[in-house]
Amino acid sequence: MLHILYIIAITAEAMTAALSAGRRNMDWVGVCMIAWVTALGGGTIRNILLGHYPMTWVSHPEYLLITAGAALFAALIASFMRRLKMLFLYLDALGLVVFTIIGCQLAEEMHLPVIIILLSGMITGCAGGVLRDVLCNDIPLLFRKEVYASVAIVTGGVYLGMEALGSSAQWATVIAAVIGLILRLLAIRYEWQMPKFVYHEEWE
Amino acid sequence: MLHILYIIAITAEAMTAALSAGRRNMDWVGVCMIAWVTALGGGTIRNILLGHYPMTWVSHPEYLLITAGAALFAALIASFMRRLKMLFLYLDALGLVVFTIIGCQLAEEMHLPVIIILLSGMITGCAGGVLRDVLCNDIPLLFRKEVYASVAIVTGGVYLGMEALGSSAQWATVIAAVIGLILRLLAIRYEWQMPKFVYHEEWE
Amino acid sequence: MLHILYIIAITAEAMTAALSAGRRNMDWVGVCMIAWVTALGGGTIRNILLGHYPMTWVSHPEYLLITAGAALFAALIASFMRRLKMLFLYLDALGLVVFTIIGCQLAEEMHLPVIIILLSGMITGCAGGVLRDVLCNDIPLLFRKEVYASVAIVTGGVYLGMEALGSSAQWATVIAAVIGLILRLLAIRYEWQMPKFVYHEEWE
Repeated sequence: MLHILYIIAITAEAMTAALSAGRRNMDWVGVCMIAWVTALGGGTIRNILLGHYPMTWVSHPEYLLITAGAALFAALIASFMRRLKMLFLYLDALGLVVFTIIGCQLAEEMHLPVIIILLSGMITGCAGGVLRDVLCNDIPLLFRKEVYASVAIVTGGVYLGMEALGSSAQWATVIAAVIGLILRLLAIRYEWQMPKFVYHEEWE
Repeated sequence: MLHILYIIAITAEAMTAALSAGRRNMDWVGVCMIAWVTALGGGTIRNILLGHYPMTWVSHPEYLLITAGAALFAALIASFMRRLKMLFLYLDALGLVVFTIIGCQLAEEMHLPVIIILLSGMITGCAGGVLRDVLCNDIPLLFRKEVYASVAIVTGGVYLGMEALGSSAQWATVIAAVIGLILRLLAIRYEWQMPKFVYHEEWE
Repeated sequence: MLHILYIIAITAEAMTAALSAGRRNMDWVGVCMIAWVTALGGGTIRNILLGHYPMTWVSHPEYLLITAGAALFAALIASFMRRLKMLFLYLDALGLVVFTIIGCQLAEEMHLPVIIILLSGMITGCAGGVLRDVLCNDIPLLFRKEVYASVAIVTGGVYLGMEALGSSAQWATVIAAVIGLILRLLAIRYEWQMPKFVYHEEWE
């Protein structure tokens, strides 16, 4: 079940990433690379940091084909994708909570401390978007806008909390995913923003 | 033989990288760093992603000295290097195919799937330039211009195809390198460009 | 002793990193991320390159809490921190030499060649700042300004030199730290700059 949602999520992430690449006038290599980095980069960075080999896409190279295909398809139907903007925002929210829970589960299986489990979920959910923004030469959106990383933390927290209360992993996953999704959709709907720290002093 | 070409290629990559650093007014530390990242970064990223330790430059620290020396030498003779522009474009093309084949061979020895072997070649051939552009605060050139990553894919494909047809690794290497080189030189000569995906809609 | 200085240094690095994040109008997630990357990123990159697992902050997750807390505290008292500018420049110099020596020691314990030991020290001391600048969408300051990486090289060189002369690791640490600190403070005081390589020719 989580596996199917994962495939849907990486496909959707790859398609929106293709539009980011298009706004930077990239060629088809750039489109595929940005799609891979956005859809699979979060899990990759998590695995590198935790020393967990092999990478998901090395054991499942079909994910590379799926995401590349989705990205090139999105480039073809770019003018149509505009009308699906809300759908893709929802799929991105789905991806965020699914990636986060998968990241938490992996760190749990490695018997890592609670903070690292939460961080593993957050990195899996968010780092792909950060990599995309670095490669597109932007300041990562994650660091500046919207309730996004916070959703990953809440999702991971609910998941761990449910398990600590004696819930099965299945129920913890469902409840954490639903709460995370609702939170993210509310954030999109009401345009919630995190308080910003603005500092204009020149320091060095 | 491939080893000698590899040394020539990292030396040439380090020298052109030094000029990139110079265009950004970097000091000698920056010149060395950009040279290392450009010449050795592709193989390093591949090794990190595939979990292949130790790094080439840890077992062969002399590569660090060679590339740093070449970069500082290039900075010294910068005004003269201008006249050698075509020579260095050719050496860069040589580096691209040599790095690609080395990357394919390494993934082959690890018994990875075909797609990963191709990707390993592409990352080895191209990722150094991407890292250089990120550190110089540019949108990676690879994603926007020229037939470059495509040459890596064709080179790797010919190499694997030859082997599938029963050829020895030596012959596969020679044929793949020659075809890759010719393709890249034609791309330089006729200024081939990949089709771009241009998308100006604001999305989110 | 080195351990206590390490805690002080990552706290100080996290606090100055928070101000960098504030200048880019980041939210609290961005502030924490930039703090983590700046304070712990050098050691993390070193561990990834050397294949040394687990990461420091996985075995000591309390470092994540300390640095995040310090960064958020710095954001709260930002207007006051301005007056402490010199104090934080000194603490940053302390961090540079402490991180460098820790990086050298780790590579030494792995029985790596001398060049790699020096590089390991330099990466540990300097890479956090490079990552911070990449995420803030700047050309890394390290590559353009000031006697900074050179201090790391001298510190590592003195440390290794002392040991080669038969000194104990303790004495080598003390002498290398003192010489490194003096060099960095002189560089700040007299605004030393490394010679730059400026090159305006368009190349390709």
